Amino acid sequence: IIATGAKPSIPPIHNIQKNGTLLDGVYVLRTIDDGKQISSCIKNGGKATIVGAGLIGLEMADALYKKGMDVTVVELLPDILASTLDSDMCKPILKEMSEKINVYTNYLVIKAEEKEGKIKGVLIQDKETNKERQLKTDVLVIAAGTKPETMLAESIGCKIGKTGGIVVDERSGTSVKNVYAVGDCTQYSDFVTNEPLSVGLGSIVVRQGIAAGINAAGGTYNLPKGFLLTRTSKFFGIEIAAVGPVKDACQNIPVIYGKFKGSSLPEYFPGGKPISMKVGVHEKTGEVLSAQAVGYNTAQRINTFACAILSGVNVEDFKKLETAYAPPIAPTLDVVTLVCDVASLKRMRKRRIP
Amino acid sequence: IIATGAKPSIPPIHNIQKNGTLLDGVYVLRTIDDGKQISSCIKNGGKATIVGAGLIGLEMADALYKKGMDVTVVELLPDILASTLDSDMCKPILKEMSEKINVYTNYLVIKAEEKEGKIKGVLIQDKETNKERQLKTDVLVIAAGTKPETMLAESIGCKIGKTGGIVVDERSGTSVKNVYAVGDCTQYSDFVTNEPLSVGLGSIVVRQGIAAGINAAGGTYNLPKGFLLTRTSKFFGIEIAAVGPVKDACQNIPVIYGKFKGSSLPEYFPGGKPISMKVGVHEKTGEVLSAQAVGYNTAQRINTFACAILSGVNVEDFKKLETAYAPPIAPTLDVVTLVCDVASLKRMRKRRIP
Repeated sequence: IIATGAKPSIPPIHNIQKNGTLLDGVYVLRTIDDGKQISSCIKNGGKATIVGAGLIGLEMADALYKKGMDVTVVELLPDILASTLDSDMCKPILKEMSEKINVYTNYLVIKAEEKEGKIKGVLIQDKETNKERQLKTDVLVIAAGTKPETMLAESIGCKIGKTGGIVVDERSGTSVKNVYAVGDCTQYSDFVTNEPLSVGLGSIVVRQGIAAGINAAGGTYNLPKGFLLTRTSKFFGIEIAAVGPVKDACQNIPVIYGKFKGSSLPEYFPGGKPISMKVGVHEKTGEVLSAQAVGYNTAQRINTFACAILSGVNVEDFKKLETAYAPPIAPTLDVVTLVCDVASLKRMRKRRIP
Repeated sequence: IIATGAKPSIPPIHNIQKNGTLLDGVYVLRTIDDGKQISSCIKNGGKATIVGAGLIGLEMADALYKKGMDVTVVELLPDILASTLDSDMCKPILKEMSEKINVYTNYLVIKAEEKEGKIKGVLIQDKETNKERQLKTDVLVIAAGTKPETMLAESIGCKIGKTGGIVVDERSGTSVKNVYAVGDCTQYSDFVTNEPLSVGLGSIVVRQGIAAGINAAGGTYNLPKGFLLTRTSKFFGIEIAAVGPVKDACQNIPVIYGKFKGSSLPEYFPGGKPISMKVGVHEKTGEVLSAQAVGYNTAQRINTFACAILSGVNVEDFKKLETAYAPPIAPTLDVVTLVCDVASLKRMRKRRIP
């Protein structure tokens, strides 16, 4: 059973390495030792720059901000959290974060400035205007994704997929008999799009481990036909969660989206907190394909959509789901069904009018 | 569209009424006015007795306890919350509540003691030993369930079911053409057992209203084939939630139960709160039939089971549901899937060994 994990992607930043090692003050975040090293560099009022606005980058930004640092996040893509949420769901998050930290989206980090082997700043460049900007920094954390570590697997002839991961099936088996692979080093499929994916979500990795262990020992354990990609995070007081492919990953599927802004409690009960949801359904079949949520208690709400996707339930049925209601706990009709009402209406209209 | 609701059940307590009205200080809880009247009787250190340990009774007990009253709950059945949770799930709740209030289960309230038309106490009787006990009380609240109000419906010939409610179908239609009925006055089916039910859950009632409105206006809206009975409540700091029939209502179905005690967060992360879960699955088909939970954030977790029941998903698939994981939000494998692992194992054993 191969569980070699992944190594951090280091973007091509000029001058970031000296004699084959990262400059002093430049870190990646993979191991507990990485965490301890970053931790030792924290100083109140110091400047921290993070490369990458994915889940890890933003969680890191939150942690360093809470420790009193002046934090800047630089992201290559036009949006933060590109593989987690659609652009429209990110806008309010970006607005809220921008009150606490600096965020540069659509910016490339092109060069590191150093003094005696220690990071002092970075030069970043606007991808559209090519305008450059200098940022002083005491710490630079690279959170630009990972690359599957496949050296061992390749050496014994395991098939490597186009994402760079070891191709595994629903048994966590590789292309080589009696060789299994699990975790960040693997490539499996997206449940909805069927496209190959290499992901490192802990929940998935643990299940792959269960599958590989049972199958290698002669038992039978088949994973679902693909990853649902149920994911969640929390930073700057904002809880987010999602399941299924983002919009950009659904190019070949006709998807209707519904959106709804609701509250965690009935409108007449004090203390309700806002929840924004978006659901994607197949225009023709009505199957629930994806859901995204920002706000209070969204992870558990997204799990209900994960179940809907896993079981292939139709939005016309799911919108009538009887959810648990009590004034101090949840509204009469929960956001999870109201957002489906919106998607259902949009779908009905689209299918009636040619 | 008939929406006549229900009237409170008044148990046959000797002396509880005088000249056809309840004694002064004796209340039921159906309307806002009932609430206001009970509220006007609250005094710090005063004694309150509640008849019935269902959801309404215990929510009332919590409210009066919080206002500084000395609260006693008297329940006819051997367990509290008999239509919400199985006996084994109630035991820890009862233990926790008993530190704050007095609870007498298996006790009948047989007589009210009055002085000048005002309640002064009740005589209760142990159903097994017949031993009697006298309780002083300043207020008596009756929360012993409701009876559907069907006078109008009966007068126009609507069929009344064995639960006493107006029989309605999935369109909220009655047996009389163009007459619909919704809410606490109706009888519909249990999704799992197919048995007739008369329930007054707000979430159900609202959906029946939607169905009746749309269908009466010439549209088409069919409810699911029965009530899932997704329910939740919170009292004495304990959140509970459930979906599907309790054990006693499943006499004719071979059900395997799995139980699991877990935490709301991964074990290595501080702040996790306990969650007890129980799931019922069909021994032969493996379909998820019911789930019960006590502890933190259980309502939304139960909604995921509601979706599983609605879509007929098999426990062998559901136990592999990819749930949202992040250390500050939820564990790698959530309680919702771990409890299914237990049920699945028990089912496998039972089916292998004759």
